[in-house]
Amino acid sequence: VNRAFEQLRRRVAEVTDLEAVVMLLEWDFEVMMPRAATTVRGEQLATAERVAHERLTDPEVGRLLDELEPAVDGLDPDTFEASLVRVVRRDFEKARRVSADLRADLARAAADGHAVWVEARERSDFTRFRPALERNLELKLRYVACFDGYDDPYDVLLDDYEPDLKTAEAAEVLDRLREELVPLVAERTGEVLDDSFLTGTFPVQQQRELERRLLPLLGYDEETWRLDDIVHPAQFGLAPTDIRISTRYSEHTLESLFSVLHEFGHGLYERQVDPALTRTPLAGGASLGLHESQSRLWENLVGRGLPFCRFLYPQLQEAFPEQLGEITLDRFYRAINKVKPSLIRVDADEVTYNLHIVLRFELERELLGGRLPLDSLPDAWNERMHRYLGVEVPDDARGVLQDSHWSGGGFGYFPTYSLGNVASVQIWQRAREALPALDDDLERGDFSGLREWLRDVLHRNGRKFTPRETMERAAGAALDPGPYLDYLREKSAEIYRLTARK
Amino acid sequence: VNRAFEQLRRRVAEVTDLEAVVMLLEWDFEVMMPRAATTVRGEQLATAERVAHERLTDPEVGRLLDELEPAVDGLDPDTFEASLVRVVRRDFEKARRVSADLRADLARAAADGHAVWVEARERSDFTRFRPALERNLELKLRYVACFDGYDDPYDVLLDDYEPDLKTAEAAEVLDRLREELVPLVAERTGEVLDDSFLTGTFPVQQQRELERRLLPLLGYDEETWRLDDIVHPAQFGLAPTDIRISTRYSEHTLESLFSVLHEFGHGLYERQVDPALTRTPLAGGASLGLHESQSRLWENLVGRGLPFCRFLYPQLQEAFPEQLGEITLDRFYRAINKVKPSLIRVDADEVTYNLHIVLRFELERELLGGRLPLDSLPDAWNERMHRYLGVEVPDDARGVLQDSHWSGGGFGYFPTYSLGNVASVQIWQRAREALPALDDDLERGDFSGLREWLRDVLHRNGRKFTPRETMERAAGAALDPGPYLDYLREKSAEIYRLTARK
Repeated sequence: VNRAFEQLRRRVAEVTDLEAVVMLLEWDFEVMMPRAATTVRGEQLATAERVAHERLTDPEVGRLLDELEPAVDGLDPDTFEASLVRVVRRDFEKARRVSADLRADLARAAADGHAVWVEARERSDFTRFRPALERNLELKLRYVACFDGYDDPYDVLLDDYEPDLKTAEAAEVLDRLREELVPLVAERTGEVLDDSFLTGTFPVQQQRELERRLLPLLGYDEETWRLDDIVHPAQFGLAPTDIRISTRYSEHTLESLFSVLHEFGHGLYERQVDPALTRTPLAGGASLGLHESQSRLWENLVGRGLPFCRFLYPQLQEAFPEQLGEITLDRFYRAINKVKPSLIRVDADEVTYNLHIVLRFELERELLGGRLPLDSLPDAWNERMHRYLGVEVPDDARGVLQDSHWSGGGFGYFPTYSLGNVASVQIWQRAREALPALDDDLERGDFSGLREWLRDVLHRNGRKFTPRETMERAAGAALDPGPYLDYLREKSAEIYRLTARK
Repeated sequence: VNRAFEQLRRRVAEVTDLEAVVMLLEWDFEVMMPRAATTVRGEQLATAERVAHERLTDPEVGRLLDELEPAVDGLDPDTFEASLVRVVRRDFEKARRVSADLRADLARAAADGHAVWVEARERSDFTRFRPALERNLELKLRYVACFDGYDDPYDVLLDDYEPDLKTAEAAEVLDRLREELVPLVAERTGEVLDDSFLTGTFPVQQQRELERRLLPLLGYDEETWRLDDIVHPAQFGLAPTDIRISTRYSEHTLESLFSVLHEFGHGLYERQVDPALTRTPLAGGASLGLHESQSRLWENLVGRGLPFCRFLYPQLQEAFPEQLGEITLDRFYRAINKVKPSLIRVDADEVTYNLHIVLRFELERELLGGRLPLDSLPDAWNERMHRYLGVEVPDDARGVLQDSHWSGGGFGYFPTYSLGNVASVQIWQRAREALPALDDDLERGDFSGLREWLRDVLHRNGRKFTPRETMERAAGAALDPGPYLDYLREKSAEIYRLTARK
């Protein structure tokens, strides 16, 4: 058994190395690669992905799992051995159900779809994108057909991002968010709250310097992290000792600051995985929702919270005296938390953000279920934007074409954003109980307590446990939108100086 | 046959992709990677190399070659098909003779050897390095034993860098360089030629700007190239559309300028390979010597030549007025071509450089042949430095420990530097015949004629032909040290204002 386990470990170490190679090819493509190499990079990526897939689905992996499963049955499920066998079995079964041909078709349709989407968005013309979207949908249905035992075809897609969560469970959370947030947004819309000073002139050099001072306090160090500022915000965890985040600066807003906090949160999760899990499939987040809980925690619960603002704001005023010199902390704090229905998801505030997600979740379920004809998609989008957020969509570019997910076949991904929001508050409340001095620490710029607590209850576990169990260990409870809704209501009441009502 | 050829092509495309991945992992390690990831990056590299090797040595590749060889026998050897089959057969046979275990031992010994060498060099202590060198030598002899049909064990090692060239042929060239250059160096040493103004203050920002203006004129463009300036000089060709060069600036010298010309020469060779050879093993230089001929051509024959200096020097004076404002073009030109025996190979001038190579070539042959005991290596090094260059080696760091090649088992590599020097002049003379206005073009900063001529006679062929045939096509003759020695004698005579004698 020990020998079989070592063999399995060696094999999955190789798969993990090849997956890190895929991520490096992607990171390099985004951040570093000369543009003319786009075609050949696509081939290099396809080769690396194919080789990783072949190694993972090698029949010998199945044989080793068969041999090891009875042996780990008696082990504590907390052990490395039991976790590894369980996770590899899951990955192995998912990977081998999909033929190499379908995989290649999916990859090609995603690449083509992305190129067509870029063009269609530039021209704000959904009809240009429609055939590529149709092809992606069709392939996704063929992908779903590779699996069985699901209640809803959407289960299969969601499971790739949020393992073991059923669509019905996600829908319960998202329906509740819709029901409670649509009226809350309507209530806040139209109230006066000046945030005009958040648009103006924030010299990029000062933004860079501020972030370069802030990040090391948060836990970033040059030995294990990189920050690049030439592409859109993203995080690439190549290994627990190789965390790369990226951002983009606009001279006119402070959005980079919050996106850096967001990507730092993703990076910290991967950074603080138990080093013993390096080169195993356990070195990573347990699910996309849990990953997002960490980015949201740092972006919103730390970053848009009052204690952190008390620490940060004097530095912001010093960096941008012309823009913020006359603005009080209170006005700044209220402005960055303003509830403000808008067209673009990635620009949305904490409250309205979720309604963008609900909309996409509903539409993709209807598309996949054949209940919404593709031709009607833009109208359905626009109608729901009006219904949920009260905004009118002026064109496809600012409507149905704004996100890249569907162009690459990423159906089932969107819900994880809101699931992460929900989880972030549950984990945050547990942190506040465990760290009574948390507010004082944040106000002083001391993030070590929070960072270490997150490592102990969540990060170090990586993918060792199911997302459900990981959540229980981190938050002390199952996923529950209640605390998140309370938080949004209370915070928005505070911002708008109203009495909270439940 | 067509089907078999397509299958072979698909397989070698995959191998080429994986080799590009290895190069990206190495480039990223040198230029971008957070330092703490060193260990895991070693594993990632080993995995990528192992997978590339397994794919290349797959028995199916052998079967396809067996099927295709009779078919391409009737083809013109110029054809893509004939070349591909020939080159893949060569790579396949070389790769499959060496067991995976020996390959792993070699890689590990190289990595360990490198780490020990860094330490030993810091302490200038050969005895610390000795065991690692012994291990590398021992493994190299085991590597040699995997092959047969050689005249000299060194043939096997040389063949990895300079395919099909025998040690006796390389020795003939290097012996002649030693015989004619030792007296030439002795003659020049001690003559007065002021180059003190090449050391001083050259602000890095101005160096960067100058190179960024110069490179696009040479043929560098942002669509297909990168230049990074945070590591030692190197070139990484990931694909003909993805060429990466690197350099390092010293505020005290202009060495970066010449190293950028050098790396540009390497990059241009890979850049101008026929695009149809992309994702095949034919997309690259025919040998390291031919590669070096291109870097040397741009560094020395263009860069240290008078016509280019006429173009460049006014810009240098403008960029560094305090340092060069009072120095005439003639003094600058003579100074950058000064013959100046020195301790360190990479700092050597055109003439003395070759004697550094001769020394290493002789010592490594003696070590591998068992004629030089390891303990005597530092003394042998120092004695030969005295004999060939008239310099006294003060310590091991500036002597036997100065180069990293042996620490990584790179025996057989050194001769290619001088072979490249020799070839560079033969190719250059052919270029001068073909391009009568070359001097005028260089003086005007027009490099397009030279660049295109090099593409047509050399670069576009990639690895399609043997190095010998590639050389014949580029230079119109076989490798011959005569023109190179004439060039060195004439140039040094011009620099020192003597009458050339032959």
